[in-house]
Parts: sequence; structure tokens; C-alpha cells
Amino acid sequence: MSKFWSPLVKSLVPYVPGEQPKMANLVKLNTNENPFGPSPKVIEAIQSELNDSLRLYPDPEGESLRQTIAGYHNVKPEQVFLGNGSDEVLAHIFYALFQHGQPVLFPDVTYSFYPVYCGLYNIEGKTVPLTDSFEINPEDYKQPNGGIIFPNPNAPTGRYLGLEHVEAILQANFERVVVVDEAYIDFGGESSIKLVDQYPNLLVCQTLSKARSLAGLRVGFAIGHPDLIDALNRVKDSFNSYPLDRLAQAGAKAAYEDEAWFQKSCNGVISERERVTEALEGLSFEVLPSKANFVFARHKEKSGDSLSKALREQGIIVRHFNKPRISEFLRITIGTPVQNDALITGLKTL
Amino acid sequence: MSKFWSPLVKSLVPYVPGEQPKMANLVKLNTNENPFGPSPKVIEAIQSELNDSLRLYPDPEGESLRQTIAGYHNVKPEQVFLGNGSDEVLAHIFYALFQHGQPVLFPDVTYSFYPVYCGLYNIEGKTVPLTDSFEINPEDYKQPNGGIIFPNPNAPTGRYLGLEHVEAILQANFERVVVVDEAYIDFGGESSIKLVDQYPNLLVCQTLSKARSLAGLRVGFAIGHPDLIDALNRVKDSFNSYPLDRLAQAGAKAAYEDEAWFQKSCNGVISERERVTEALEGLSFEVLPSKANFVFARHKEKSGDSLSKALREQGIIVRHFNKPRISEFLRITIGTPVQNDALITGLKTL
Repeated sequence: MSKFWSPLVKSLVPYVPGEQPKMANLVKLNTNENPFGPSPKVIEAIQSELNDSLRLYPDPEGESLRQTIAGYHNVKPEQVFLGNGSDEVLAHIFYALFQHGQPVLFPDVTYSFYPVYCGLYNIEGKTVPLTDSFEINPEDYKQPNGGIIFPNPNAPTGRYLGLEHVEAILQANFERVVVVDEAYIDFGGESSIKLVDQYPNLLVCQTLSKARSLAGLRVGFAIGHPDLIDALNRVKDSFNSYPLDRLAQAGAKAAYEDEAWFQKSCNGVISERERVTEALEGLSFEVLPSKANFVFARHKEKSGDSLSKALREQGIIVRHFNKPRISEFLRITIGTPVQNDALITGLKTL
Repeated sequence: MSKFWSPLVKSLVPYVPGEQPKMANLVKLNTNENPFGPSPKVIEAIQSELNDSLRLYPDPEGESLRQTIAGYHNVKPEQVFLGNGSDEVLAHIFYALFQHGQPVLFPDVTYSFYPVYCGLYNIEGKTVPLTDSFEINPEDYKQPNGGIIFPNPNAPTGRYLGLEHVEAILQANFERVVVVDEAYIDFGGESSIKLVDQYPNLLVCQTLSKARSLAGLRVGFAIGHPDLIDALNRVKDSFNSYPLDRLAQAGAKAAYEDEAWFQKSCNGVISERERVTEALEGLSFEVLPSKANFVFARHKEKSGDSLSKALREQGIIVRHFNKPRISEFLRITIGTPVQNDALITGLKTL
């Protein structure tokens, strides 16, 4: 703290991203990265942008990329908002659409950046408890609010909410924006994007960091009614006109032009997820049903903290949250078959 | 406007970046890009990051790049804050250091994003008129304020303020942060970075978009006392943990490792600037003394608006601001010798 700080900086509680260890040869299953690399077409597309044109500003509106994403999801380009990863998109959403003097609702067990955004913009956040089985109950979202946000599938639980339940939340909240944060949707869930033309209060957020295997490139987007996108653009253009560099725009576009690679990658993660789930169950873990690229699991006897530490000693990094309700769980990213074997073998020795 | 917008979104007046025309073969002298490309070492460094590792998140702290920049500027890594272009750095500065319930001071003729940031965070901005010769007078910054910011050299004037005058402003404002925005410092000015260890209230902001020729890569940074950097990190980690992608971090680092290229590029711009200035003066322009990669010039008879339009008809794009005090000026980016010749030839026909 210093006299130079804006007073509210003192009260911020910043987000703590999953550790990015610099040691080599780790089995890194802690940040939900895709074990399979990006499409070779992504590499090629970036390659062809990698020249003197870097001296020029990128397209501030990312028009070409927006057109590609819009075409892929069967919406109009003016329904697509781009950001430097979905975290930046979410930040702008909180600023642009959630400041209504009423609490923003999100699950008690969810992405831990949501309360951080509330802190940043001095928005009241209100947590809505998941059920005992860690599910979202739409009935709980029928209360006054300044907006609603939840991941689907939820993180770190991995549990998916069917679209009929998403619609129940939308229908109970026609006066507020409901944000469905679909970072993990491509691993077995059905996207709410198909509902945006029906619900002007729906905004769907996605990222290229997970299923598209481009966490290193920082691209995310939101899709919704043009009125909602307008608000986001006004905030973005009051913050940073050029959040996506030339290489990121080119690479992201190419990622949507290789459907075969995408499908193969998602299917690879899904089949490994089923295998890991079965193995964990065989090792006395309770595993929540997951539609994400991770599983959330607790051992019937051993503590989450001790398991996380013991795995780390073997060079296997998983994520453990020392938080109410979930401190016995491990969030384990689905890795390559070799990594998953290392995890299973490692757990067998404990 | 929609009922879903946070009310303050309506009152935002977003920044309007210089046009990025999509036509080819334009003589594009409107956004102060570097006419010379980035160092080949930048391309090589990005090339070697362009692989499967894109599936992994970048280093959220950009440690390696911060070390390089710190070493280059002879400060400690904890004195360096990185952002997605200096615009993002500036946004975080306004949030983190300028919210003190008093007006933030900046010149009346300056970078037009400053009042936009004020609007975004509901900070009062107070413009301080430049002198009749468009210079900053340090005496004018001896008044109560919540912070001070100015570019050096100033934009769009190109006028440079000597370090003794920067120090006069710093000494008159020990209770407030003074931000020197040095986007154009490498084209003939002396950086205030050498003063940061002496003035804990000094924060210097730079970008790789201009002298480093990497506008397309989106990297900027601030250097100052670790207390100031701390505040920026708290805000950044409450907004977006990973603003710099893997390729940008690698490319930016390499840009600091090719000093010869950097010097040659800056010298090339400077010598062309002197040539363009002389030519413009020969064509009845008044040209403000510039230490930037652009000149700010007005014709003694012809209007800025008509000249700008007439040049555009010839495929030559310069920037014209329809604003008080400067509506007769053109801001002309220094291009390649061929581009500058086209400009001069074009003006001769008008």
C-alpha cells in the first residue's frame, strides 16, 4: 500500500491463476490446457502473418475473425465480441452489463474470477449454493439480481446443465443479462449459442484456450444480441482498441477452419476422460459427472490436500482448492494417454 | 442503449483509433506506424515459439520479458509492468493510481485516449492548455490534482519536453503520480526512465508499437517504483491474468536483443523526418519541431481539412483532427523514403 494508490486498489483480491511451473518433465494437469496441440493449420496461418506486417496495427475490430466465428455458429458478425482471452471478455461484461445496483448471482462453487470482477467494479456478488450433488438448480435463480453468470459445464465441478434448465433461468430473468460461460462446452455439452436469437438477455462466452488448444494465444469471445455486443464494444473502445494482435487473429481464424482436427481433439479428450473416470473410481474416488476437459474427484478416505502434495512429489501437478465444500476434491485436467497413465500409476502407489 | 446496459455505458465516449483502411497500395501515414519492419530476430524468436506449446498458457507475469526490459533500462524486474499495448497499461494506470477525487491533469492538445479513460472510471479530467507554441509549461502543473499524465514527446504535436522540465513537474507533485507516456521517446528524446529511482512518484510508459516496429504484436510497459508497479499488478490480476500471449512475449524480448536494428530504424526515421520537415517548410507549411515519428504541420493558406481530403484522393492517408486549436494541422507519419516522396509530390500538385 502506498499513498499513490487509488484507495480501492487496497481492497482488491486479485485472481490467482493456476501455477505455471517452469520445471520441465512435469505431468501438468492443473490448468485445464488441452493435451493435444493446435491444428497445424493454425501454425500455418500464423506463419503467413509472421512478417514485416507486424509493424502495422491489427484490425481493431477483428472483422475477419468475427465473420468466421459468426459463420461457424450461425449468427451475424455484429453478434460477436472478441477479447484477449475470455477473461478479458468477462471483465468487460461485468463492467458493461452487471452494474445495476443489485447483486450479481453466481454459484458458490464456480470460477473464482467472478468475485474478483465484482471487487474490481465494486459490484455486489451473491453466491447461490449448488445442490448437495454440486448441481445448479434453476429455481435458485428466481430472485432479484443485477445479472447472472455461471459456467456451463461449471468449473471446477465439471457438471453440465442441460439447455432446458438454462432456458428456465433465462425465462425467469427477462430484465437481466444471463451470461453462460462456456469455456468447456465442446467436451460433451450443448452450446446455448443456439438460444441467443430467442433470448435477448442471453450472452454466451467462449474461449479458444480449451477445445481449440490455444491457451497460449489469448482469444475469447461472446455471442449475443447486438445490443449487448454494442455495450461491450463501447467499454472495449474505452479501454484498449486493439486487444488481439495480428498473429492471434490469424491463428484463431484458422482454428475454426479445421473442423476435423477440432472434432478429433475433443473426442480424444472425452474418451480419455471416461477412461480416467473409471480408473479413479476403481481407486476409491468419487468422481463428479464431467462434461469438461477435467474431472473433479475426492477420495473416500484420503484428504485432497495430502493427495495433491503426494502427487506433486512425483512430478504430477493437479489443482487443489482450499475452499469450503471442495477442499477434499482434486481438479484433474485430462492429459494425454501417457500423462493420464502416469497419474493413475502415481495414485496407485499412494 | 438497452435496458441491459450498465447505466454508465451510455455516457462513455469511446476512443476512435486511426483508420485502418483495407485497400492495398495506400500511402498510409495516419497511425504513426514504423515504416521499417521489425528486426529479423523478432521473426525468428516468434518462429521458435510457434509450435504445440500454444496449447499452454503463457507466463502470466512475463518474467523473462520483464527481465530483458529491466536489464535494457537498468532497473529491476519488479519495476516493470507489462500490458497488451501501452493503451492497456494506461487504462490500468488510470484505475490504479488516478482515483483520488481530484482532477487528473493533461494537456488540452494531447493523446485523445486520456479523457476516455477518465470517462471509463468516472475520473474528472482537467485539460491544461499548451502554450501558444504548443509546448507544455511546467508552471501550469502546480495546482491541486489527482495525478498528471502527458506524452513526451507530446502527440499529436511531436514537441519534446526536456528532462529538467519533467523534473520541475515531478518536484511540484510529490503527493501525486506523474505519468510520462513515452510512446515516441526513441526518435530523439531522452527517456525519463533514468529518473525513476529518484522520484517514487514517477511512472514512465513505453510501447513496442513505434520504435520497435511491433504495433501488430500489442506490447507496452510501465517502469517506476515497485509500489506503483504493485498497484498495477493488483488491477491487472483482477482483470485478466494473461494479457500477453506466448508469441508476443517471445517477439518483444527479441526486439530488445537487436540494438543495431533498433538504432538503424530510429535513425532512418529521424533523418527522413528532417527531410520531410524541410520539404514541408518549402511548401509553405509551418512544422512544429518534432522528436516523434510524425510531424504536425499546418499550411499557411490551405485548410487542414481540404488538404487531408485532397491527399486522400491521391491515396495518401494522413490524420486530421477536427478539434479546437489544431483543426488546421495535419499529423503526418514519417514513412519510407518512397512514401515520403509520394507525400511531397502529392502536396506539390495541390
